Amino acid sequence: MRDIKYQQILDEIKGRVEPLYGRGQVADYIPELRKVKPHQFAMCLTCVNDKAQYSTGCAEKPFSIQSISKVFALILAASKIGERVYQRVGIEPSGDPFNSLVQLEHEQGFPRNPLINAGALVVSDILISCLDDPKTQLLDFVRRLANNSKINFDASVTDSEKKTGFRNYAMAYFLKSFERIENCVDDVLDLYFHQCSLSMSCSDLSYAFLVLANRGVIMHSGDKILTPSQSKRINSIMQTCGFYDQAGEFTFRVGLPGKSGVGGGIAAIKPDEFSIAVWSPELNKHGNSVLGMHALEHFTTATGKSIF
Amino acid sequence: MRDIKYQQILDEIKGRVEPLYGRGQVADYIPELRKVKPHQFAMCLTCVNDKAQYSTGCAEKPFSIQSISKVFALILAASKIGERVYQRVGIEPSGDPFNSLVQLEHEQGFPRNPLINAGALVVSDILISCLDDPKTQLLDFVRRLANNSKINFDASVTDSEKKTGFRNYAMAYFLKSFERIENCVDDVLDLYFHQCSLSMSCSDLSYAFLVLANRGVIMHSGDKILTPSQSKRINSIMQTCGFYDQAGEFTFRVGLPGKSGVGGGIAAIKPDEFSIAVWSPELNKHGNSVLGMHALEHFTTATGKSIF
Amino acid sequence: MRDIKYQQILDEIKGRVEPLYGRGQVADYIPELRKVKPHQFAMCLTCVNDKAQYSTGCAEKPFSIQSISKVFALILAASKIGERVYQRVGIEPSGDPFNSLVQLEHEQGFPRNPLINAGALVVSDILISCLDDPKTQLLDFVRRLANNSKINFDASVTDSEKKTGFRNYAMAYFLKSFERIENCVDDVLDLYFHQCSLSMSCSDLSYAFLVLANRGVIMHSGDKILTPSQSKRINSIMQTCGFYDQAGEFTFRVGLPGKSGVGGGIAAIKPDEFSIAVWSPELNKHGNSVLGMHALEHFTTATGKSIF
Amino acid sequence: MRDIKYQQILDEIKGRVEPLYGRGQVADYIPELRKVKPHQFAMCLTCVNDKAQYSTGCAEKPFSIQSISKVFALILAASKIGERVYQRVGIEPSGDPFNSLVQLEHEQGFPRNPLINAGALVVSDILISCLDDPKTQLLDFVRRLANNSKINFDASVTDSEKKTGFRNYAMAYFLKSFERIENCVDDVLDLYFHQCSLSMSCSDLSYAFLVLANRGVIMHSGDKILTPSQSKRINSIMQTCGFYDQAGEFTFRVGLPGKSGVGGGIAAIKPDEFSIAVWSPELNKHGNSVLGMHALEHFTTATGKSIF
Repeated sequence: MRDIKYQQILDEIKGRVEPLYGRGQVADYIPELRKVKPHQFAMCLTCVNDKAQYSTGCAEKPFSIQSISKVFALILAASKIGERVYQRVGIEPSGDPFNSLVQLEHEQGFPRNPLINAGALVVSDILISCLDDPKTQLLDFVRRLANNSKINFDASVTDSEKKTGFRNYAMAYFLKSFERIENCVDDVLDLYFHQCSLSMSCSDLSYAFLVLANRGVIMHSGDKILTPSQSKRINSIMQTCGFYDQAGEFTFRVGLPGKSGVGGGIAAIKPDEFSIAVWSPELNKHGNSVLGMHALEHFTTATGKSIF
Repeated sequence: MRDIKYQQILDEIKGRVEPLYGRGQVADYIPELRKVKPHQFAMCLTCVNDKAQYSTGCAEKPFSIQSISKVFALILAASKIGERVYQRVGIEPSGDPFNSLVQLEHEQGFPRNPLINAGALVVSDILISCLDDPKTQLLDFVRRLANNSKINFDASVTDSEKKTGFRNYAMAYFLKSFERIENCVDDVLDLYFHQCSLSMSCSDLSYAFLVLANRGVIMHSGDKILTPSQSKRINSIMQTCGFYDQAGEFTFRVGLPGKSGVGGGIAAIKPDEFSIAVWSPELNKHGNSVLGMHALEHFTTATGKSIF
Repeated sequence: MRDIKYQQILDEIKGRVEPLYGRGQVADYIPELRKVKPHQFAMCLTCVNDKAQYSTGCAEKPFSIQSISKVFALILAASKIGERVYQRVGIEPSGDPFNSLVQLEHEQGFPRNPLINAGALVVSDILISCLDDPKTQLLDFVRRLANNSKINFDASVTDSEKKTGFRNYAMAYFLKSFERIENCVDDVLDLYFHQCSLSMSCSDLSYAFLVLANRGVIMHSGDKILTPSQSKRINSIMQTCGFYDQAGEFTFRVGLPGKSGVGGGIAAIKPDEFSIAVWSPELNKHGNSVLGMHALEHFTTATGKSIF
Repeated sequence: MRDIKYQQILDEIKGRVEPLYGRGQVADYIPELRKVKPHQFAMCLTCVNDKAQYSTGCAEKPFSIQSISKVFALILAASKIGERVYQRVGIEPSGDPFNSLVQLEHEQGFPRNPLINAGALVVSDILISCLDDPKTQLLDFVRRLANNSKINFDASVTDSEKKTGFRNYAMAYFLKSFERIENCVDDVLDLYFHQCSLSMSCSDLSYAFLVLANRGVIMHSGDKILTPSQSKRINSIMQTCGFYDQAGEFTFRVGLPGKSGVGGGIAAIKPDEFSIAVWSPELNKHGNSVLGMHALEHFTTATGKSIF
């Protein structure tokens, strides 16, 4: 039996946030992202207990998930090498912008957490070291989490990153200079740019994040990907580090562990209850989706389902 | 009806953590704290629904709450001027040590959050501006939260801080130079050193923190101190900023919003369920109680009552 | 026999720089300095070989020498404890603003050089430790160097600093927290604020700096204050550290070791040849006198007497 | 007529510094440099007035000049585009290590001066933009300055840098991300690694630096490479920025504008008088030649020819 209330809430939220169009800017740091039509909104909720999915807006439309992909890479790495991931990256908030090299220099190249760029590059390096065909295997893994074999990389976004992502090149070579990266820098960046270019819909993202709400088990297959403890750790990292320099603000306003991307997506979960994804391309100055932040705030206010 | 299980769990935890004596160091940054006997442990749980209190160890023995007092000062300030507190201090994790001046210089003296020293000094300044007799009123407020009129400042600790707390003097004058402090620096430091010297037991602390687990309402009196939203904000700030540079570690291992002090105390809450306080003077290198961290981790593991 | 050429050059320079009035701002960081009439100019040259003095403008009018006093305190400290001064302060350029606390935090409170505020405070501390009556003895020392017993502190400037110099209080307590200051912070600041408030004319300054052009010997008395090596070291420190974050610019444009102050004064020397002082209150954004910088540049261009 | 005194002084210096063998370490940051035999010493002086050259030790033996090459690149750039060089790089000391990225991040990628790595990479970029065949033309330029057509790049050193110089890759991409580099990063690094690998003897270096002692004119050909002002500017930059974080120490102990390299070479000049080069591979912890620093200090002490 579907819970009508959720559907009503999502539809009401859509009505409340659409007047906010125009308050943010579509990401312009890579040329491909600039082309996205700004006034779009989608939201999708998937429940743990009955797998019911509720959505509003263009919830089947794929978009560039960008930094949200860092969570998938982290899940895959944790499923392969367990807690050893955290010998290579920390779990503390950085207090600096996501692409800052300052902290890295002061801390001998050890990334504060896996959700800033430096940490994600090290996670890419881990995947290259422990997988035979990391790009294909990461893609397959995401498809498996989302139960959708059509998910793919967006080659034009990958190319755009490769041509203009100089800060990421700088970061990767900087990590290499501290011997924090084992493999060839070009290979690490190739995997990293590919994962950032993953194109997924809110429906895909919500489904894929369910594994973190379900203590590490894929709902539809019953596959155990992570131990409950590993899953809990990733959730706690998302809580403190998932929203660039708005982690505190998001923790207060939304009160759910989650991760945002400059493509305008946000995915979040409530342990044992649900996962939720939202998308709208216009970003605030912190790089988080304007409508997405408001939509999630309305959602936890309306349902009382914050963790605080 | 008392829940026997909780009592058993607390007693078991005591047995499990006491072998960890000797793994940390009693705080030595002010002379008075060095005098505390290291091998002590206490824990106290207070439930929201029935006000039942469970404890183990020397739960009635007062100790120096130090930085935990920052939460009381913040609650009092929020109860007086509401959201305007957050025009004076931020709500984001700092990523730097609790007494760093670097970030302050880079950010024109605006403290990242009210739980680092810089932010707590600004909260002291707020209290001085809006209270007639801030020291007395803060003390009365804490007594009221804890329902214990015997709570007091420890004059020898206050004096010790005044004679040796040069870093806090530096911080306060630095804030003043950025015009972030309205009142006389000596008055701000006097209030700050007094609040840090508050002497409370685990029983007191657990009772006093209940207001944050109870959406801003004092349980025993029914007084509304904060709105639910104000209470939620303070909880989310504790989650991301309450444990110096171990916020991420605590979020993962314990998974509760809380605050630690270099006196060896930690207080934490689970919204709508309970507040819990633990004390043991030996600190790890991050300034958090060794036994306290382990005890809380055991507690959330045994009860499943983490927020993640 | 007086060298007419120098007099002509100075007078020509005055004519060339006066059209620059209005291009800078009188210092406003302490209230007293704001009261100075902006459109004033003075310049005074004293030669080593014949003690001849040449001047133009209001060369006998006293002004607040501010940071130039750091050189006098350093000379006095070096004359008392020799090279041990450099165990307490470094000799390298800081690369940061003169009143930055960032570098100090990163380097455990060891000041980069004696001409930034942190270093000057440590020099004050040295003087307090090795003199019976440091304020009086410093004043007597400056009078002796300048051969003018009427030089004095300006009490209104001292008071103004004491009431508003919060950044210096912060710096001094910060140094104290790193145990870089031996004496009471209030005493150190009292001496420091007094030395900054010294009121001297260009004629006084030029005469007083002659000791550094004369390898450590006071010309008029023959007293050996410093060894040639000590004198050379202070000159080299002035060259690399004497002009806030314009040290490189001054080294190029003027090419003489010197020191500026936010009162609008600059004193410089050429070893074995002369000392020169210039004053005009309007400052550029780096805190150096606009007309002063230009006047010295014209002087070394006209005379060829740069060290490069 | 040769000045016998200089020859004696150089030979005496050799005797005095050779007992210091073993006090430093041969550079190990690139594999090729590690192979150099540590106990070698050479020194060569060239006078402006009579072009007389004096030398001691293996003054004709080529070594890797490394960062000394930054001066040649700067001279060439200044000869091509004049003062516009200083719109692309600053002239102030950095206060940070030569390969730090921190300052660059805080200052939007604008290098403090052309003698730190970031600045030298921008100078390489300038040369690529204004030369048809920058590697060949830079090599020809250095040969012309040194009047030695046999000078060449050392391909094994270039290769070694290319394979291991990750920090320089990071720096170049970081500059590119701030749009401080116009050309392809690989081209910039190729030129930079080539210039660093220039192999020259003390005799070559001393001769080549004469242009800076001779106000921008090549002695043997009379070619005007720089204006006197441009030459003076480069000298003043060497004075304040030429010795990594020992600029102040070198300014005091030696008192000459100069530049060191991690190959163990140092070249310095006294305007209108001489240029001097010294080489010994063992470095102190600051990256400067142990014997080289002492040799130059003895030289200016013995001759009185410091600029202070």
